Amino acid sequence: MITSAQNSKIKLVRALLGRAKERREAGMFVVEGVRLIEEAVKGDWRLETVLFDETLSERGKSQVEGLRSRGVDVEEVSESLMKSLSETETPQGILAVLKFTELPIPNNLNFVLIPDQIRDPGNLGTLLRSAAATCVQAVLIPPETTDAFAPKVLRAGMGAHFRVPIRETGWDQIHDVCWLAGLQVLVADMEGKSCWEMDLKQPLALIIGGEAEGASDEARKLATQKISIPMAGNVESLNAGVAGSVLMFEVVRQRAYAG
Amino acid sequence: MITSAQNSKIKLVRALLGRAKERREAGMFVVEGVRLIEEAVKGDWRLETVLFDETLSERGKSQVEGLRSRGVDVEEVSESLMKSLSETETPQGILAVLKFTELPIPNNLNFVLIPDQIRDPGNLGTLLRSAAATCVQAVLIPPETTDAFAPKVLRAGMGAHFRVPIRETGWDQIHDVCWLAGLQVLVADMEGKSCWEMDLKQPLALIIGGEAEGASDEARKLATQKISIPMAGNVESLNAGVAGSVLMFEVVRQRAYAG
Repeated sequence: MITSAQNSKIKLVRALLGRAKERREAGMFVVEGVRLIEEAVKGDWRLETVLFDETLSERGKSQVEGLRSRGVDVEEVSESLMKSLSETETPQGILAVLKFTELPIPNNLNFVLIPDQIRDPGNLGTLLRSAAATCVQAVLIPPETTDAFAPKVLRAGMGAHFRVPIRETGWDQIHDVCWLAGLQVLVADMEGKSCWEMDLKQPLALIIGGEAEGASDEARKLATQKISIPMAGNVESLNAGVAGSVLMFEVVRQRAYAG
Repeated sequence: MITSAQNSKIKLVRALLGRAKERREAGMFVVEGVRLIEEAVKGDWRLETVLFDETLSERGKSQVEGLRSRGVDVEEVSESLMKSLSETETPQGILAVLKFTELPIPNNLNFVLIPDQIRDPGNLGTLLRSAAATCVQAVLIPPETTDAFAPKVLRAGMGAHFRVPIRETGWDQIHDVCWLAGLQVLVADMEGKSCWEMDLKQPLALIIGGEAEGASDEARKLATQKISIPMAGNVESLNAGVAGSVLMFEVVRQRAYAG
Protein backbone atom coordinates (compact mmCIF):
# COMPACT_ATOMS: atom_id res chain seq x y z
CA MET A 1 0.00 0.00 0.00
CA ILE A 2 1.29 3.44 -0.92
CA THR A 3 1.29 5.80 2.07
CA SER A 4 3.91 8.37 1.10
CA ALA A 5 3.12 11.61 -0.69
CA GLN A 6 6.63 11.31 -2.17
CA ASN A 7 5.80 8.14 -4.07
CA SER A 8 6.39 8.73 -7.78
CA LYS A 9 2.87 7.65 -8.78
CA ILE A 10 1.32 10.00 -6.25
CA LYS A 11 3.50 12.83 -7.50
CA LEU A 12 2.49 12.08 -11.09
CA VAL A 13 -1.24 12.10 -10.21
CA ARG A 14 -0.89 15.36 -8.35
CA ALA A 15 0.89 16.99 -11.27
CA LEU A 16 -1.69 15.71 -13.78
CA LEU A 17 -4.59 16.95 -11.67
CA GLY A 18 -2.98 20.36 -11.65
CA ARG A 19 -1.86 22.20 -14.73
CA ALA A 20 -2.77 21.60 -18.37
CA LYS A 21 0.92 21.94 -19.21
CA GLU A 22 1.75 18.88 -17.11
CA ARG A 23 -0.98 16.87 -18.81
CA ARG A 24 0.18 17.86 -22.27
CA GLU A 25 3.83 17.13 -21.60
CA ALA A 26 3.06 13.73 -20.09
CA GLY A 27 0.36 12.90 -22.64
CA MET A 28 -1.76 11.70 -19.72
CA PHE A 29 -4.66 12.81 -17.53
CA VAL A 30 -6.55 11.60 -14.47
CA VAL A 31 -10.18 10.59 -14.07
CA GLU A 32 -11.88 9.99 -10.74
CA GLY A 33 -14.66 7.63 -9.85
CA VAL A 34 -16.03 4.23 -10.82
CA ARG A 35 -18.36 5.51 -13.54
CA LEU A 36 -15.83 7.55 -15.48
CA ILE A 37 -13.28 4.74 -15.31
CA GLU A 38 -15.93 2.33 -16.62
CA GLU A 39 -16.57 4.65 -19.55
CA ALA A 40 -12.85 4.84 -20.30
CA VAL A 41 -12.52 1.06 -20.23
CA LYS A 42 -15.59 0.61 -22.44
CA GLY A 43 -14.04 3.04 -24.93
CA ASP A 44 -10.74 1.08 -24.87
CA TRP A 45 -8.69 3.92 -23.48
CA ARG A 46 -5.30 2.89 -22.07
CA LEU A 47 -5.08 2.91 -18.28
CA GLU A 48 -1.56 3.59 -17.01
CA THR A 49 -2.26 3.24 -13.31
CA VAL A 50 -5.27 2.83 -11.07
CA LEU A 51 -5.18 3.94 -7.42
CA PHE A 52 -7.86 3.03 -4.90
CA ASP A 53 -8.37 3.09 -1.14
CA GLU A 54 -10.33 1.01 1.33
CA THR A 55 -13.40 3.26 1.17
CA LEU A 56 -14.09 1.98 -2.35
CA SER A 57 -17.61 0.59 -2.96
CA GLU A 58 -18.28 -3.09 -3.77
CA ARG A 59 -18.89 -2.12 -7.38
CA GLY A 60 -15.55 -0.34 -7.39
CA LYS A 61 -13.77 -3.32 -5.84
CA SER A 62 -15.00 -5.67 -8.53
CA GLN A 63 -13.88 -3.07 -11.07
CA VAL A 64 -10.43 -3.11 -9.50
CA GLU A 65 -10.32 -6.93 -9.66
CA GLY A 66 -11.36 -6.87 -13.30
CA LEU A 67 -8.68 -4.36 -14.20
CA ARG A 68 -5.99 -6.26 -12.29
CA SER A 69 -6.84 -9.47 -14.11
CA ARG A 70 -6.43 -7.60 -17.38
CA GLY A 71 -2.90 -6.61 -16.39
CA VAL A 72 -3.56 -3.00 -15.43
CA ASP A 73 -1.22 -1.60 -12.77
CA VAL A 74 -3.50 -1.29 -9.72
CA GLU A 75 -2.30 -0.05 -6.33
CA GLU A 76 -3.95 0.54 -3.00
CA VAL A 77 -3.19 3.86 -1.31
CA SER A 78 -3.98 5.06 2.18
CA GLU A 79 -7.30 6.79 2.70
CA SER A 80 -5.66 10.04 3.79
CA LEU A 81 -3.44 10.08 0.71
CA MET A 82 -6.46 9.54 -1.57
CA LYS A 83 -8.30 12.32 0.17
CA SER A 84 -5.37 14.66 -0.36
CA LEU A 85 -5.46 13.90 -4.10
CA SER A 86 -9.19 13.97 -4.68
CA GLU A 87 -10.80 17.05 -6.17
CA THR A 88 -14.30 16.22 -4.97
CA GLU A 89 -15.95 16.68 -1.61
CA THR A 90 -17.11 13.08 -1.58
CA PRO A 91 -14.24 11.09 -3.13
CA GLN A 92 -15.20 7.71 -4.55
CA GLY A 93 -11.96 6.05 -3.51
CA ILE A 94 -10.65 5.39 -6.99
CA LEU A 95 -8.84 7.24 -9.74
CA ALA A 96 -7.04 6.29 -12.92
CA VAL A 97 -4.19 7.75 -14.94
CA LEU A 98 -5.06 7.54 -18.64
CA LYS A 99 -3.04 7.99 -21.82
CA PHE A 100 -4.46 10.58 -24.18
CA THR A 101 -6.09 8.91 -27.17
CA GLU A 102 -7.06 10.87 -30.25
CA LEU A 103 -10.42 9.52 -31.29
CA PRO A 104 -10.52 9.68 -35.08
CA ILE A 105 -12.41 12.55 -36.69
CA PRO A 106 -14.57 11.24 -39.55
CA ASN A 107 -14.31 12.60 -43.07
CA ASN A 108 -17.15 14.67 -44.47
CA LEU A 109 -18.09 16.29 -41.19
CA ASN A 110 -21.56 17.71 -40.84
CA PHE A 111 -21.70 18.67 -37.15
CA VAL A 112 -18.77 20.29 -35.33
CA LEU A 113 -18.70 22.20 -32.04
CA ILE A 114 -16.18 24.97 -31.26
CA PRO A 115 -16.38 26.15 -27.61
CA ASP A 116 -14.53 29.46 -27.78
CA GLN A 117 -13.18 31.42 -24.80
CA ILE A 118 -15.09 29.16 -22.40
CA ARG A 119 -13.23 29.69 -19.12
CA ASP A 120 -15.56 27.85 -16.77
CA PRO A 121 -14.72 24.13 -16.56
CA GLY A 122 -18.30 23.23 -15.64
CA ASN A 123 -19.63 24.96 -18.74
CA LEU A 124 -17.09 23.26 -21.00
CA GLY A 125 -17.93 19.87 -19.47
CA THR A 126 -21.63 20.53 -19.97
CA LEU A 127 -21.03 21.42 -23.62
CA LEU A 128 -19.05 18.20 -24.14
CA ARG A 129 -21.75 16.13 -22.42
CA SER A 130 -24.43 17.64 -24.64
CA ALA A 131 -22.19 17.20 -27.70
CA ALA A 132 -22.01 13.47 -26.97
CA ALA A 133 -25.80 13.37 -26.60
CA THR A 134 -26.34 15.09 -29.95
CA CYS A 135 -23.81 13.10 -32.02
CA VAL A 136 -21.46 16.01 -32.57
CA GLN A 137 -18.64 14.50 -34.65
CA ALA A 138 -15.76 16.65 -33.45
CA VAL A 139 -15.12 19.28 -30.82
CA LEU A 140 -12.37 21.74 -31.74
CA ILE A 141 -11.03 23.63 -28.74
CA PRO A 142 -9.22 26.91 -29.44
CA PRO A 143 -6.37 28.03 -27.16
CA GLU A 144 -8.43 30.57 -25.20
CA THR A 145 -10.76 27.89 -23.86
CA THR A 146 -9.99 26.13 -20.59
CA ASP A 147 -8.26 22.73 -20.80
CA ALA A 148 -10.76 20.00 -21.72
CA PHE A 149 -8.93 17.38 -19.66
CA ALA A 150 -8.95 19.27 -16.35
CA PRO A 151 -10.64 17.32 -13.52
CA LYS A 152 -13.76 19.51 -13.36
CA VAL A 153 -14.31 19.33 -17.11
CA LEU A 154 -13.97 15.55 -17.07
CA ARG A 155 -16.45 15.34 -14.20
CA ALA A 156 -19.06 17.57 -15.84
CA GLY A 157 -18.48 15.76 -19.16
CA MET A 158 -19.77 12.48 -17.68
CA GLY A 159 -17.83 10.32 -20.13
CA ALA A 160 -18.20 12.51 -23.22
CA HIS A 161 -14.40 12.69 -23.46
CA PHE A 162 -14.32 8.98 -24.32
CA ARG A 163 -16.93 9.22 -27.08
CA VAL A 164 -16.47 12.50 -28.93
CA PRO A 165 -13.24 13.34 -30.77
CA ILE A 166 -11.73 16.39 -29.07
CA ARG A 167 -8.85 18.45 -30.44
CA GLU A 168 -7.20 21.24 -28.48
CA THR A 169 -5.82 23.24 -31.33
CA GLY A 170 -4.82 26.64 -32.68
CA TRP A 171 -6.90 28.74 -35.06
CA ASP A 172 -4.27 28.27 -37.76
CA GLN A 173 -4.70 24.55 -37.58
CA ILE A 174 -8.49 24.84 -37.64
CA HIS A 175 -8.02 26.65 -40.96
CA ASP A 176 -5.26 24.47 -42.35
CA VAL A 177 -6.59 21.00 -41.63
CA CYS A 178 -9.75 21.80 -43.55
CA TRP A 179 -11.99 20.35 -40.86
CA LEU A 180 -14.47 23.05 -41.70
CA ALA A 181 -14.36 22.73 -45.50
CA GLY A 182 -17.89 22.73 -46.85
CA LEU A 183 -19.41 23.60 -43.48
CA GLN A 184 -21.47 26.64 -42.63
CA VAL A 185 -19.82 28.20 -39.59
CA LEU A 186 -22.40 29.64 -37.19
CA VAL A 187 -21.50 31.74 -34.17
CA ALA A 188 -23.99 32.06 -31.31
CA ASP A 189 -24.74 35.75 -30.90
CA MET A 190 -27.64 37.70 -29.42
CA GLU A 191 -27.85 39.69 -32.66
CA GLY A 192 -28.08 36.60 -34.81
CA LYS A 193 -30.96 35.10 -36.71
CA SER A 194 -33.36 32.94 -34.68
CA CYS A 195 -32.25 29.30 -34.55
CA TRP A 196 -35.88 28.37 -35.20
CA GLU A 197 -35.85 30.27 -38.49
CA MET A 198 -32.55 28.92 -39.79
CA ASP A 199 -31.95 25.79 -41.79
CA LEU A 200 -29.70 23.67 -39.58
CA LYS A 201 -29.97 20.54 -41.69
CA GLN A 202 -26.98 21.58 -43.78
CA PRO A 203 -23.47 20.60 -42.56
CA LEU A 204 -22.38 23.09 -39.92
CA ALA A 205 -19.92 24.06 -37.23
CA LEU A 206 -21.29 25.85 -34.19
CA ILE A 207 -19.14 28.35 -32.26
CA ILE A 208 -20.22 29.02 -28.67
CA GLY A 209 -18.45 31.99 -27.05
CA GLY A 210 -17.69 32.42 -23.38
CA GLU A 211 -20.09 34.20 -21.07
CA ALA A 212 -17.82 37.07 -20.26
CA GLU A 213 -16.42 38.07 -23.61
CA GLY A 214 -18.44 36.09 -26.15
CA ALA A 215 -16.63 34.67 -29.16
CA SER A 216 -13.14 35.86 -30.11
CA ASP A 217 -12.24 37.91 -33.18
CA GLU A 218 -10.66 34.81 -34.71
CA ALA A 219 -13.94 32.95 -34.27
CA ARG A 220 -15.97 35.78 -35.74
CA LYS A 221 -13.70 35.92 -38.78
CA LEU A 222 -14.39 32.25 -39.37
CA ALA A 223 -18.16 32.54 -38.96
CA THR A 224 -20.42 32.78 -41.97
CA GLN A 225 -23.56 33.63 -39.99
CA LYS A 226 -24.80 34.56 -36.52
CA ILE A 227 -27.37 32.40 -34.79
CA SER A 228 -29.44 33.28 -31.71
CA ILE A 229 -31.92 31.76 -29.30
CA PRO A 230 -34.96 34.05 -29.00
CA MET A 231 -35.37 35.17 -25.40
CA ALA A 232 -37.84 37.03 -23.24
CA GLY A 233 -37.46 40.82 -23.30
CA ASN A 234 -35.24 41.59 -20.34
CA VAL A 235 -32.99 38.57 -20.33
CA GLU A 236 -29.56 39.37 -21.68
CA SER A 237 -28.02 35.98 -22.07
CA LEU A 238 -28.03 32.33 -21.15
CA ASN A 239 -25.46 30.20 -19.41
CA ALA A 240 -22.95 29.27 -22.17
CA GLY A 241 -23.40 25.55 -21.52
CA VAL A 242 -27.15 25.91 -21.82
CA ALA A 243 -27.05 28.12 -24.93
CA GLY A 244 -24.79 25.65 -26.73
CA SER A 245 -26.92 22.71 -25.66
CA VAL A 246 -30.19 24.29 -26.79
CA LEU A 247 -28.61 24.98 -30.20
CA MET A 248 -27.13 21.48 -30.53
CA PHE A 249 -30.48 19.87 -29.78
CA GLU A 250 -32.19 22.20 -32.25
CA VAL A 251 -29.80 20.88 -34.91
CA VAL A 252 -30.79 17.31 -34.01
CA ARG A 253 -34.48 18.19 -34.01
CA GLN A 254 -34.37 19.79 -37.43
CA ARG A 255 -32.38 16.93 -38.91
CA ALA A 256 -34.70 14.32 -37.44
CA TYR A 257 -38.07 16.00 -37.69
CA ALA A 258 -38.12 19.00 -39.98
CA GLY A 259 -38.81 18.75 -43.69
CA MET B 1 -16.62 52.27 8.38
CA ILE B 2 -17.49 48.87 9.84
CA THR B 3 -14.38 46.89 10.74
CA SER B 4 -15.65 44.48 13.38
CA ALA B 5 -16.93 40.99 12.63
CA GLN B 6 -19.14 41.45 15.69
CA ASN B 7 -21.11 44.29 14.10
CA SER B 8 -24.80 43.37 13.98
CA LYS B 9 -25.10 43.97 10.22
CA ILE B 10 -22.09 41.79 9.53
CA LYS B 11 -23.53 39.06 11.70
CA LEU B 12 -26.86 39.32 9.89
CA VAL B 13 -25.20 39.05 6.46
CA ARG B 14 -23.14 36.06 7.55
CA ALA B 15 -26.24 34.29 8.87
CA LEU B 16 -28.24 35.02 5.71
CA LEU B 17 -25.42 33.78 3.47
CA GLY B 18 -25.47 30.55 5.45
CA ARG B 19 -28.53 28.45 6.09
CA ALA B 20 -31.93 28.58 4.38
CA LYS B 21 -33.54 28.50 7.83
CA GLU B 22 -31.94 31.84 8.71
CA ARG B 23 -33.17 33.38 5.48
CA ARG B 24 -36.71 32.13 5.99
CA GLU B 25 -36.90 33.26 9.59
CA ALA B 26 -35.59 36.71 8.77
CA GLY B 27 -37.54 37.02 5.52
CA MET B 28 -34.36 38.32 3.94
CA PHE B 29 -31.50 37.21 1.71
CA VAL B 30 -28.21 38.56 0.36
CA VAL B 31 -27.11 39.28 -3.20
CA GLU B 32 -23.56 40.08 -4.24
CA GLY B 33 -22.31 42.27 -7.02
CA VAL B 34 -23.26 45.40 -8.93
CA ARG B 35 -25.28 43.62 -11.61
CA LEU B 36 -27.55 41.62 -9.33
CA ILE B 37 -28.19 44.65 -7.13
CA GLU B 38 -29.09 46.62 -10.25
CA GLU B 39 -31.60 43.94 -11.22
CA ALA B 40 -33.12 44.02 -7.75
CA VAL B 41 -33.48 47.80 -7.84
CA LYS B 42 -34.99 47.69 -11.32
CA GLY B 43 -37.53 45.16 -10.06
CA ASP B 44 -38.38 47.41 -7.09
CA TRP B 45 -37.19 44.95 -4.46
CA ARG B 46 -36.67 46.44 -1.01
CA LEU B 47 -33.03 46.87 0.01
CA GLU B 48 -32.49 46.67 3.76
CA THR B 49 -28.79 47.37 3.81
CA VAL B 50 -25.98 47.74 1.30
CA LEU B 51 -22.36 47.08 2.27
CA PHE B 52 -19.40 48.00 0.09
CA ASP B 53 -15.64 48.32 0.37
CA GLU B 54 -12.99 50.49 -1.25
CA THR B 55 -12.27 47.96 -4.02
CA LEU B 56 -15.66 48.77 -5.57
CA SER B 57 -15.61 49.75 -9.26
CA GLU B 58 -16.58 53.23 -10.50
CA ARG B 59 -19.87 51.83 -11.74
CA GLY B 60 -20.46 50.37 -8.28
CA LYS B 61 -19.60 53.65 -6.59
CA SER B 62 -22.16 55.55 -8.59
CA GLN B 63 -24.65 52.80 -7.74
CA VAL B 64 -23.87 53.34 -4.06
CA GLU B 65 -24.40 57.09 -4.42
CA GLY B 66 -27.71 56.54 -6.19
CA LEU B 67 -28.95 54.20 -3.47
CA ARG B 68 -27.84 56.53 -0.70
CA SER B 69 -29.72 59.44 -2.26
CA ARG B 70 -32.82 57.25 -2.32
CA GLY B 71 -32.54 56.71 1.42
CA VAL B 72 -31.12 53.18 1.38
CA ASP B 73 -28.93 52.30 4.37
CA VAL B 74 -25.44 52.12 2.83
CA GLU B 75 -22.29 51.41 4.83
CA GLU B 76 -18.64 51.04 3.99
CA VAL B 77 -16.86 48.01 5.45
CA SER B 78 -13.18 47.15 5.54
CA GLU B 79 -11.79 45.18 2.63
CA SER B 80 -10.82 42.25 4.81
CA LEU B 81 -14.28 42.06 6.34
CA MET B 82 -15.89 42.07 2.89
CA LYS B 83 -13.53 39.34 1.77
CA SER B 84 -14.48 37.23 4.77
CA LEU B 85 -18.17 37.55 3.82
CA SER B 86 -17.90 37.09 0.09
CA GLU B 87 -18.73 33.72 -1.43
CA THR B 88 -16.85 34.35 -4.66
CA GLU B 89 -13.18 34.13 -5.51
CA THR B 90 -13.24 37.58 -7.04
CA PRO B 91 -15.55 39.64 -4.82
CA GLN B 92 -17.02 42.73 -6.42
CA GLY B 93 -16.86 44.79 -3.26
CA ILE B 94 -20.61 45.18 -2.78
CA LEU B 95 -23.51 43.20 -1.39
CA ALA B 96 -27.07 43.95 -0.39
CA VAL B 97 -29.53 42.54 2.11
CA LEU B 98 -32.95 42.26 0.48
CA LYS B 99 -36.44 41.63 1.83
CA PHE B 100 -38.21 38.68 0.25
CA THR B 101 -40.91 39.83 -2.14
CA GLU B 102 -43.49 37.44 -3.51
CA LEU B 103 -43.90 38.35 -7.14
CA PRO B 104 -47.56 37.75 -8.02
CA ILE B 105 -48.42 34.56 -9.87
CA PRO B 106 -50.84 35.33 -12.71
CA ASN B 107 -54.21 33.62 -13.05
CA ASN B 108 -54.74 31.14 -15.86
CA LEU B 109 -51.21 29.82 -15.89
CA ASN B 110 -49.97 28.15 -19.03
CA PHE B 111 -46.27 27.61 -18.28
CA VAL B 112 -44.99 26.47 -14.87
CA LEU B 113 -41.64 24.96 -13.89
CA ILE B 114 -41.19 22.54 -10.96
CA PRO B 115 -37.51 21.77 -10.25
CA ASP B 116 -37.77 18.64 -8.11
CA GLN B 117 -34.98 17.16 -5.96
CA ILE B 118 -32.45 19.49 -7.57
CA ARG B 119 -29.61 19.51 -5.01
CA ASP B 120 -26.99 21.38 -6.99
CA PRO B 121 -27.31 25.16 -6.56
CA GLY B 122 -25.70 25.84 -9.93
CA ASN B 123 -28.26 23.66 -11.68
CA LEU B 124 -31.17 25.32 -9.89
CA GLY B 125 -29.83 28.76 -10.78
CA THR B 126 -29.42 27.71 -14.40
CA LEU B 127 -33.01 26.47 -14.48
CA LEU B 128 -34.24 29.78 -13.05
CA ARG B 129 -32.19 31.77 -15.53
CA SER B 130 -33.61 29.78 -18.43
CA ALA B 131 -37.11 30.07 -16.94
CA ALA B 132 -36.78 33.86 -17.05
CA ALA B 133 -35.60 33.65 -20.65
CA THR B 134 -38.58 31.52 -21.68
CA CYS B 135 -41.32 33.50 -19.90
CA VAL B 136 -42.12 30.77 -17.39
CA GLN B 137 -44.90 32.30 -15.27
CA ALA B 138 -44.18 30.56 -11.97
CA VAL B 139 -41.52 28.30 -10.49
CA LEU B 140 -42.80 26.02 -7.73
CA ILE B 141 -40.00 24.62 -5.60
CA PRO B 142 -40.77 21.46 -3.61
CA PRO B 143 -39.08 20.88 -0.23
CA GLU B 144 -36.49 18.40 -1.53
CA THR B 145 -34.91 20.98 -3.82
CA THR B 146 -32.08 23.17 -2.58
CA ASP B 147 -32.99 26.66 -1.34
CA ALA B 148 -33.56 29.02 -4.26
CA PHE B 149 -32.20 32.03 -2.36
CA ALA B 150 -28.82 30.53 -1.47
CA PRO B 151 -25.88 32.62 -2.75
CA LYS B 152 -24.83 30.18 -5.48
CA VAL B 153 -28.38 29.88 -6.84
CA LEU B 154 -28.75 33.67 -6.93
CA ARG B 155 -25.43 33.97 -8.74
CA ALA B 156 -26.26 31.35 -11.37
CA GLY B 157 -29.79 32.81 -11.72
CA MET B 158 -28.35 36.09 -13.02
CA GLY B 159 -31.35 38.13 -11.91
CA ALA B 160 -34.08 35.59 -12.68
CA HIS B 161 -35.14 35.73 -9.00
CA PHE B 162 -36.32 39.31 -9.52
CA ARG B 163 -38.40 38.53 -12.61
CA VAL B 164 -40.00 35.11 -12.19
CA PRO B 165 -42.44 34.36 -9.34
CA ILE B 166 -40.83 31.67 -7.16
CA ARG B 167 -42.60 29.76 -4.41
CA GLU B 168 -40.79 27.38 -2.08
CA THR B 169 -43.70 25.19 -1.12
CA GLY B 170 -44.92 21.76 -0.03
CA TRP B 171 -46.59 19.23 -2.32
CA ASP B 172 -49.84 19.64 -0.37
CA GLN B 173 -49.91 23.30 -1.21
CA ILE B 174 -49.11 22.66 -4.85
CA HIS B 175 -52.27 20.53 -4.88
CA ASP B 176 -54.43 22.80 -2.74
CA VAL B 177 -53.74 26.18 -4.28
CA CYS B 178 -54.85 24.90 -7.67
CA TRP B 179 -51.86 26.42 -9.44
CA LEU B 180 -51.88 23.42 -11.72
CA ALA B 181 -55.61 23.32 -12.45
CA GLY B 182 -56.17 22.83 -16.15
CA LEU B 183 -52.47 22.22 -16.84
CA GLN B 184 -50.91 19.12 -18.31
CA VAL B 185 -48.17 18.07 -15.89
CA LEU B 186 -45.14 16.67 -17.72
CA VAL B 187 -42.23 15.02 -15.97
CA ALA B 188 -38.87 14.80 -17.75
CA ASP B 189 -37.97 11.12 -17.97
CA MET B 190 -35.71 9.10 -20.25
CA GLU B 191 -38.61 6.74 -20.92
CA GLY B 192 -40.95 9.55 -21.94
CA LYS B 193 -42.29 10.55 -25.31
CA SER B 194 -40.00 12.69 -27.47
CA CYS B 195 -40.44 16.40 -26.77
CA TRP B 196 -40.37 16.91 -30.52
CA GLU B 197 -43.40 14.68 -30.99
CA MET B 198 -45.51 16.16 -28.21
CA ASP B 199 -47.87 19.10 -28.40
CA LEU B 200 -46.40 21.65 -25.99
CA LYS B 201 -48.68 24.49 -27.04
CA GLN B 202 -51.27 23.50 -24.47
CA PRO B 203 -50.96 24.92 -20.91
CA LEU B 204 -48.41 22.85 -19.02
CA ALA B 205 -46.25 22.42 -15.96
CA LEU B 206 -42.82 20.86 -16.42
CA ILE B 207 -41.20 18.82 -13.65
CA ILE B 208 -37.41 18.45 -13.87
CA GLY B 209 -35.96 15.87 -11.49
CA GLY B 210 -32.52 15.93 -9.91
CA GLU B 211 -29.59 14.21 -11.57
CA ALA B 212 -29.03 11.65 -8.86
CA GLU B 213 -32.51 10.42 -8.08
CA GLY B 214 -34.71 11.91 -10.80
CA ALA B 215 -38.16 13.13 -9.84
CA SER B 216 -39.75 12.16 -6.52
CA ASP B 217 -42.76 9.87 -6.06
CA GLU B 218 -44.86 12.91 -5.21
CA ALA B 219 -43.89 14.51 -8.50
CA ARG B 220 -44.60 11.35 -10.47
CA LYS B 221 -48.06 11.08 -8.90
CA LEU B 222 -48.79 14.59 -10.11
CA ALA B 223 -47.55 14.01 -13.64
CA THR B 224 -49.96 13.22 -16.45
CA GLN B 225 -47.25 12.31 -18.96
CA LYS B 226 -43.52 11.67 -19.35
CA ILE B 227 -41.45 13.76 -21.72
CA SER B 228 -37.93 13.05 -22.99
CA ILE B 229 -35.18 14.59 -25.06
CA PRO B 230 -34.01 12.10 -27.68
CA MET B 231 -30.32 11.36 -27.20
CA ALA B 232 -27.51 9.52 -28.94
CA GLY B 233 -27.32 5.81 -28.14
CA ASN B 234 -24.85 5.59 -25.27
CA VAL B 235 -25.62 8.78 -23.44
CA GLU B 236 -27.65 8.16 -20.31
CA SER B 237 -28.66 11.60 -19.26
CA LEU B 238 -28.07 15.32 -19.51
CA ASN B 239 -27.16 17.85 -16.89
CA ALA B 240 -30.47 18.69 -15.15
CA GLY B 241 -30.08 22.40 -15.86
CA VAL B 242 -29.51 21.66 -19.53
CA ALA B 243 -32.35 19.14 -19.84
CA GLY B 244 -34.82 21.58 -18.30
CA SER B 245 -33.59 24.42 -20.48
CA VAL B 246 -33.82 22.43 -23.71
CA LEU B 247 -37.41 21.49 -22.82
CA MET B 248 -38.38 25.05 -21.84
CA PHE B 249 -37.06 26.44 -25.12
CA GLU B 250 -38.88 23.69 -27.04
CA VAL B 251 -42.10 24.92 -25.42
CA VAL B 252 -41.34 28.45 -26.60
CA ARG B 253 -40.42 27.26 -30.08
CA GLN B 254 -43.64 25.30 -30.53
CA ARG B 255 -45.78 28.14 -29.23
CA ALA B 256 -44.07 30.70 -31.44
CA TYR B 257 -43.43 28.70 -34.59
CA ALA B 258 -45.40 25.48 -34.77
CA GLY B 259 -48.90 25.24 -36.12
